[in-house]
Amino acid sequence: MSVFTTVSSDDLAPFLKRYSLGQLVDIKGIAAGVTNTNYFVTTTHGKYVLTLFETLRADELPYYVNLMVHLGQHGIAIAAPIANLSGEYIDELNGKPTLLVPCLPGAVTDSPNAAQCAQVGEMLAQMHLAAASYSGQMANPRGPQWWSATAHDMYPFMGEAEAALLHAEVQLQSQHKFDQLPRGVIHADLFRDNALMNGDLVGGFIDFYYACNDILLYDLAITLNDWCVLPDGDIDAERAQAMLAGYQSVRPLTTDEVADWPIMLRAAALRFWVSRLLDFHKPAAGEMTFAKDPGHFQRVIEHHKQRSDFWLS
Amino acid sequence: MSVFTTVSSDDLAPFLKRYSLGQLVDIKGIAAGVTNTNYFVTTTHGKYVLTLFETLRADELPYYVNLMVHLGQHGIAIAAPIANLSGEYIDELNGKPTLLVPCLPGAVTDSPNAAQCAQVGEMLAQMHLAAASYSGQMANPRGPQWWSATAHDMYPFMGEAEAALLHAEVQLQSQHKFDQLPRGVIHADLFRDNALMNGDLVGGFIDFYYACNDILLYDLAITLNDWCVLPDGDIDAERAQAMLAGYQSVRPLTTDEVADWPIMLRAAALRFWVSRLLDFHKPAAGEMTFAKDPGHFQRVIEHHKQRSDFWLS
Repeated sequence: MSVFTTVSSDDLAPFLKRYSLGQLVDIKGIAAGVTNTNYFVTTTHGKYVLTLFETLRADELPYYVNLMVHLGQHGIAIAAPIANLSGEYIDELNGKPTLLVPCLPGAVTDSPNAAQCAQVGEMLAQMHLAAASYSGQMANPRGPQWWSATAHDMYPFMGEAEAALLHAEVQLQSQHKFDQLPRGVIHADLFRDNALMNGDLVGGFIDFYYACNDILLYDLAITLNDWCVLPDGDIDAERAQAMLAGYQSVRPLTTDEVADWPIMLRAAALRFWVSRLLDFHKPAAGEMTFAKDPGHFQRVIEHHKQRSDFWLS
Repeated sequence: MSVFTTVSSDDLAPFLKRYSLGQLVDIKGIAAGVTNTNYFVTTTHGKYVLTLFETLRADELPYYVNLMVHLGQHGIAIAAPIANLSGEYIDELNGKPTLLVPCLPGAVTDSPNAAQCAQVGEMLAQMHLAAASYSGQMANPRGPQWWSATAHDMYPFMGEAEAALLHAEVQLQSQHKFDQLPRGVIHADLFRDNALMNGDLVGGFIDFYYACNDILLYDLAITLNDWCVLPDGDIDAERAQAMLAGYQSVRPLTTDEVADWPIMLRAAALRFWVSRLLDFHKPAAGEMTFAKDPGHFQRVIEHHKQRSDFWLS
C-alpha cells in the first residue's frame, strides 16, 4: 500500500483550518500508487484527495501543480488543485509537501471500450491544445538519452535474443529524429490506471508527475499502446481507430506525424520496456514497486514491427 | 423567461472550438434569471452553463469573474469560470460578453431545513475568509446612499403608515455607523434562489453580480433574512441558530458584530424592501421583472423590531 507517511485526524484538523473546505469528517489511506502518500479526506463540504509528496521536493512541484491549475481553468477533466487561505497550492504536513484536490467522479477501467478510447483520445487532444498557453518548461527525464543508457545496463540481465532486439530498437530510434513534429506539454504516462472513467466519459486524468515538454505524438502513442492493447501485446483495431478519431476530431495529425506514427508507437513502447526492465532487475532500494512484466512491451514492439495497418485511414 | 439573445447551434459550435470542452451535443435556454441570457450547453465532455451578459459591459465583468475564479481555486462551492484557449474567461458571442461555467450539482430549495442553513452559513464564512486574499475592489451600489435616495422617491407611492415606517428605518440606519465591523468581499444577494443545494450540502453559490466590498455581517444578515424566514416575515429560530452556528464554526463574530447584529438585520431587510418598492412602483422600461411583494420585507423589519432573542447564545 502507499501510505509512507502516516497522517492522523489530529494532524489533519489544524491543517484543514488553512483551507476553505469545512470540518474534517473522515480520513482514509489510499492503497494505489507507488511513490506518494495519498489519503481520501472527507469534510463537511465533500470528498478530497490529499497527497504527501515523498520524493519530489517542494521546489520541483510548481511545474506539475501549476500545470494542473492551468488545465483545470480550461475545463480539462482533471482534479484541479485547491489553494489554501494564503493562496498557495502547495502546503506542508508532517514534514512533506502536500496537495489537496477534489475527488473526481468515476473509476479506473481495465477493459475500456471503443467509446471510452474515443473520449480519452479527444480529451488528450484538448489537453494538448489547452496546455499550449502554459509557460512552464520541463525536459523529459525518460527520453532517448535515458533509455539508451538504461538499456545498456540491462543487457547483462537479459537473454541474448531479447538483448539483441532491445539493442536494435535503441539503435533504430537513435537514427530517427522527430524534429518536425509538434511539441508541447505531454502527460507522458496516460495509462488506464491514470484516468478515471465516468461511464464513457473521462472523469479525470490523474498523476501528472511525469508530465514534461516533449512531442505530442509521443503522448498519443504511449496512451494508445496501453488503452488499446490486447493481452498478447497486439493492438485492438477498433479501439485504436476510435482513439485516433477522437484525438483527430480536435487536433488532426500533420503529414509529418502520420509518416512518423509507426515508429513513434515503437518509441513509446521502448520507453516502458526499458523502465520495466529497470524496475524488474534493479529495483530501487526500499522502493515499493509492483514489478510489472517487462516482456509485455517487447511483445507490443514485435506486433508493431509486423503491422501494416496503423488505423489512420 | 430569460433568453434575451438567441443562440443557435450554428452560433455555438464555432464558439466552442475556442474551448477545451468537446463537441456540442445540445443547447437549451434557461428560464430563471431576469438580467442575463443563460443556456444549458451539453457537450461530449459534460454539461455547462453559458451566460450572455445583457447589461454588464465587458469592462465591468472582471471584478465578478476574477472573484469567481479566485473562490473556485480555494474550493468554495461555486461554478468556476472556464478559460478559452487564449486563457481568457470572458469571450463574446452574438455581440454579448459571455461566460462558460460547469453545471453544478443540486437544485434550488424553497424550504431549507436547519442542516442546510448550517451548511450555507458555514460556506458563507469560508467564502468570506477565502475572499480575504482577493485584490479586486467594488463599492456597493445598493448601500445607504442608494436606499436613502430611492426611499425618498417611493414615499409618494406608499400609504402614510408604511411611508412613516420606511422613513424611520432610513433615519435609524443613517444614525448608525458600522465602522468597527470587519469588511471584505460579500455576495450581497445570497437568497435561496442563488444557491444550489445538493442534499444538505451546498452544491454551489451562483449569481455573483451584486458582489462587492462591504461589511461581512451585512452579508450574513441578508442571507439569514431569506433562508430562515417564515411566511409571515418572522424568523424561524431553529434555522437561524443553525445558520449562525455554521457561520461561527468558521468565523466567530466579534463583540462589535454581536452588538450590531439586531440593527444589521434591519439594514439588510431595508435594502430589499427599497429595491422591491422600486421594482414594483417604477419598473425599468422593458425590464422583465417578476415584481415581488415589497410588504414582505416591511413585515421582516416589524418582526425584528419586536424581537428580544437574536439566536446568538
